[in-house]
Amino acid sequence: MRQSSRGRVDPFIVMDVMERARAAEAAGRHIVHMEIGQPGTPAPAGARAALVAAMEEGPLGYTVALGLPALRARIARHYGEWYGVDLDPARVVVTAGASAAFVLAFAALFDAGQRVGLGLPGYPSYRHILKAMSLDPVCFETAAADRFQPVPGGLPADLAGLILASPGNPAGTMLSREGLGALLEAARARAISVVSDEIYHGIDYGTRAVSALELGDDVYVVNSFSKYFSMTGWRIGWLVVPPDHVRAVERLAQNMFICPSHAGQVAALAAFDCMAELEATRATYAANRALMLERLPGAGFPDFAPPDGAFYVYADVSHLTDDSLALSAEILDRAGVAVAPGVDFDPVRGRHMLRLSYAGAPDEIALGLDRLAEWVSTRERRG
Amino acid sequence: MRQSSRGRVDPFIVMDVMERARAAEAAGRHIVHMEIGQPGTPAPAGARAALVAAMEEGPLGYTVALGLPALRARIARHYGEWYGVDLDPARVVVTAGASAAFVLAFAALFDAGQRVGLGLPGYPSYRHILKAMSLDPVCFETAAADRFQPVPGGLPADLAGLILASPGNPAGTMLSREGLGALLEAARARAISVVSDEIYHGIDYGTRAVSALELGDDVYVVNSFSKYFSMTGWRIGWLVVPPDHVRAVERLAQNMFICPSHAGQVAALAAFDCMAELEATRATYAANRALMLERLPGAGFPDFAPPDGAFYVYADVSHLTDDSLALSAEILDRAGVAVAPGVDFDPVRGRHMLRLSYAGAPDEIALGLDRLAEWVSTRERRG
Repeated sequence: MRQSSRGRVDPFIVMDVMERARAAEAAGRHIVHMEIGQPGTPAPAGARAALVAAMEEGPLGYTVALGLPALRARIARHYGEWYGVDLDPARVVVTAGASAAFVLAFAALFDAGQRVGLGLPGYPSYRHILKAMSLDPVCFETAAADRFQPVPGGLPADLAGLILASPGNPAGTMLSREGLGALLEAARARAISVVSDEIYHGIDYGTRAVSALELGDDVYVVNSFSKYFSMTGWRIGWLVVPPDHVRAVERLAQNMFICPSHAGQVAALAAFDCMAELEATRATYAANRALMLERLPGAGFPDFAPPDGAFYVYADVSHLTDDSLALSAEILDRAGVAVAPGVDFDPVRGRHMLRLSYAGAPDEIALGLDRLAEWVSTRERRG
Repeated sequence: MRQSSRGRVDPFIVMDVMERARAAEAAGRHIVHMEIGQPGTPAPAGARAALVAAMEEGPLGYTVALGLPALRARIARHYGEWYGVDLDPARVVVTAGASAAFVLAFAALFDAGQRVGLGLPGYPSYRHILKAMSLDPVCFETAAADRFQPVPGGLPADLAGLILASPGNPAGTMLSREGLGALLEAARARAISVVSDEIYHGIDYGTRAVSALELGDDVYVVNSFSKYFSMTGWRIGWLVVPPDHVRAVERLAQNMFICPSHAGQVAALAAFDCMAELEATRATYAANRALMLERLPGAGFPDFAPPDGAFYVYADVSHLTDDSLALSAEILDRAGVAVAPGVDFDPVRGRHMLRLSYAGAPDEIALGLDRLAEWVSTRERRG
């Protein structure tokens, strides 16, 4: 059978690392997971209890395509609570994770062949999903001096769309309100449709992230229960769209997904009542972050920008390699620590970068730092 | 913001009917659900218990993109048990329902603008997903004399792909081994990639459905836990692909979905140990089907082909209407029964067809038949 050319996308390399780590564990090794962007904590206890209760009550059949009305209403309320934004629940689309939100957004906004801009380093699946949907991802480098975020003057020509992410992945840096506003204004002036990825909102260290919805309605906002709400494997996210886009997105969602997981939606709704537990998890990230900032330099990784949010450090390892993929394989093999190679996020400059996640349990992060320090020092003695 | 042209798909009308039924229920009415293709039964008890246990054990984080290895192995074993096919688990891709399996299959197989054939009447989302992914759905009518299934001589020219479904939706009719074999051979001769939708396998009444995998490896097979396994809202399906397509589909899955719901995968794996419960459910469908065949003619719906499988009757209502969409709204409004208009499955000939699902609980089906009979006789008295 013939394969399509759009289907020949690069792997999401961190998923490959995760698979190799799983294979090593299956073979009996202990691996510290600093590769994958997911909390070490489960879904909040209240979320799990709500699902147990719902399973007793009756079948969890299809929901309507846009999601459980109570969940859409609760997500809308969340925008009032966190951002002071009065959001109509009718604009909220519950999705099968942020991933499905991107698939829906790209189908609703762009036709085959159109150019969609995204800054590097950035979440690798943006460009791979775009390609798989016959779009043309236009990657542009962002500057370390701009904290790896786009600026209006750096946008490529002839864009139909632009993806923004604040806090960004892998660097964890934020756009300021002014920076985000300037980008939205530039996009508006050039009729560029903006998709704002806000999946790491709520996980910040001192400065609250600004939502694009605070600055206007003519934007698609993507968010998820995976990160702040600690529900990665549950695959529930959401999309907020302009009022006049709701019906088109609903039709796409009906056909492309039918509905997101009913079980996941039940758990997600209850997760909003678990803020104490979630804030405790955020305090753990803050402690992990402090440990990373304190110990990474001594462990042989001195060169990185302190992250504003999310749970990653994007470290320069040019003193160790210009092949971050090989280096991540070596670290998994020799040190028993899974890390994400920078090439996943930036195919060129990422060759001398690694992303280290500190979303795991504190003792695992500490153990990972021990192993990294030991491995670097052994390597230096050998080298 | 501009909307794409590919994003302007028709609604999955039955989902709109479902939403109107939900609104009627929210307003206090009792509605009999004969619109939606989903079991009235919950996920098997053993599946739910397995999830409760898994939630106690630890976080349900991301799984690897192709799905839990144990689930992939169990699905492969299922092909041995049901079809006598020796299937390599490496070829099994667990997906977020059959819906995501189609999105992956279409991305992996076809490039923008390519023509993909599908018979009418058929599952409406085929053509809508194809359009949303910039493909060209080429619809062709199948004949009642062929039991609404394609025949090699009826295939349109210049196809890159062909979608088959046996048992089909909405008619519930099957392709014989010979019929399926002839279609696969014709497709092979013309280098047409076949996607075989086998989502209703296991729900049959006398004749076992044939899997395309019994007849060759050069095919994409789509299946799901939604129907036989009674797990619609859990959104777990699967795709079997040729060995040399696995890596491409894995990369697409990593990027487009990350992974299917971990909770759903845990429940799905345990569902294979619940065959007694599932066979009891199938017996209920068989009883419902017998009730439909017996009572529909007297209720005013005499004209339909007895289904081989699935849980639908596709009834000719040309004596009542040439606008099945309006008729389904009238039936919901006047009779309190939600049914699916034929235009969802066949935009032209479906104007005088309705699809009636008998997947619900027996007392609800009986009540629905009572209400339909009462409504038809009142309408005739008025009319």
